[in-house]
Amino acid sequence: MDIDLVATWAEAQHADLGGRVAVVIDVLRASSTIVAALAAGANRVAPVETVAECRELARRLRRSGVVLGGERNALRIPGYDLGNSPLEYTPEAVSERTVVLTTTNGTQAVARAIEADSIVIASLNNAAAVVAWLVRRNQDVTVICSGTEGRISLDDLYCGGMLISRLFEPHFVGDIGDGARMAMEWFVANAEAADSVIRSCYHGRRLIDQGFGDDVGYCAEVDTIDIVPVWDGVAFAIETGP
Amino acid sequence: MDIDLVATWAEAQHADLGGRVAVVIDVLRASSTIVAALAAGANRVAPVETVAECRELARRLRRSGVVLGGERNALRIPGYDLGNSPLEYTPEAVSERTVVLTTTNGTQAVARAIEADSIVIASLNNAAAVVAWLVRRNQDVTVICSGTEGRISLDDLYCGGMLISRLFEPHFVGDIGDGARMAMEWFVANAEAADSVIRSCYHGRRLIDQGFGDDVGYCAEVDTIDIVPVWDGVAFAIETGP
Repeated sequence: MDIDLVATWAEAQHADLGGRVAVVIDVLRASSTIVAALAAGANRVAPVETVAECRELARRLRRSGVVLGGERNALRIPGYDLGNSPLEYTPEAVSERTVVLTTTNGTQAVARAIEADSIVIASLNNAAAVVAWLVRRNQDVTVICSGTEGRISLDDLYCGGMLISRLFEPHFVGDIGDGARMAMEWFVANAEAADSVIRSCYHGRRLIDQGFGDDVGYCAEVDTIDIVPVWDGVAFAIETGP
Repeated sequence: MDIDLVATWAEAQHADLGGRVAVVIDVLRASSTIVAALAAGANRVAPVETVAECRELARRLRRSGVVLGGERNALRIPGYDLGNSPLEYTPEAVSERTVVLTTTNGTQAVARAIEADSIVIASLNNAAAVVAWLVRRNQDVTVICSGTEGRISLDDLYCGGMLISRLFEPHFVGDIGDGARMAMEWFVANAEAADSVIRSCYHGRRLIDQGFGDDVGYCAEVDTIDIVPVWDGVAFAIETGP
């Protein structure tokens, strides 16, 4: 199993994803929200890049069974049912419905991942479940950190480094790319500091300033949700094994 | 002094360089070559993005006083005087001449840095000189790691992390960006391992395979050259103080 990591979706343009599993990470908050929505009983989560696409897809999917979620600059989009806070994605809000989600960084990273063989969503919350899924799948992996506004974001690097360190130790790794090695080694130096890293990174500090401190704390919890969102061509749904 | 770092020139598109000093790093090998050429007595080094620009600039500058240097896929460009090996840039080859240089990654990073207030070139060889220059200048800094083919490259991250760790400890840092923090913390975990990091990263291994092992060893030497190449609007030249 070769392991590669890109630190921003800008860098993802230069990575060859053919024949690989793409693991998309946007800890604050899109990937945490996708995991939360499916854990709360949503049937599927469809990430789209633009607000216009979001409305269009919602129209096509019959409005009654659809929840519109998303943010621009961390705030709920006017007319949407939900923002991008994973804490909003309760069973009451999303159970047995399809979530159509647009966010500033995370959904763009999913769009870049489309040429991969398969795409899964990882957050700190479902890290153990994703590692178990990747081990069962036993295919080359590219971890795609969404970043924040095109820049490296430590929340995503931390989660990526955690996944890679867990894959690396017990399992054979054929080749580990420079970004993957750096994220892993940096994670190992901060392995016990999930909460403080997520709160102190640029995006964490900004969300706390905007009043989303509870979200940041929630997104920093490790191994709390045992599901893996897997791309089915249109949306993410729970798949327990490859 | 705020400190920021971008890990690839793709990420540099998303960084605001206005009013800042840009420190461009391409340890393997463009920034090491620029430092070597000026240390060997070249008057100036003009990095250009394309081979066509390189020939055009050489024509304009009067061919007799000009050395054409550069590589594509690590190899000397046909018809050029020199490749991109810093060991070729001897006093005999470049003294009192202008070097026009085009390389795959490093010269593109310089082009992205053009909106900065000033641009300096750093390698491991001149790390201490660059840190001293930045301390005297006392302006916000953005470290631009060139990367390799659009991807993160550990040779550049290692040098960037070294510069930042040396700026961080004794000097006030107003704000440190996520990428700068990661590079610094990762460097500190590998502070004594310059040679093994540079030889074992993707680009180092590839150059060694291509027969450039001596270059890789040379580029991994720390604090061996006491000059700072500073951008004068057209080219880099030695400047001993801001």
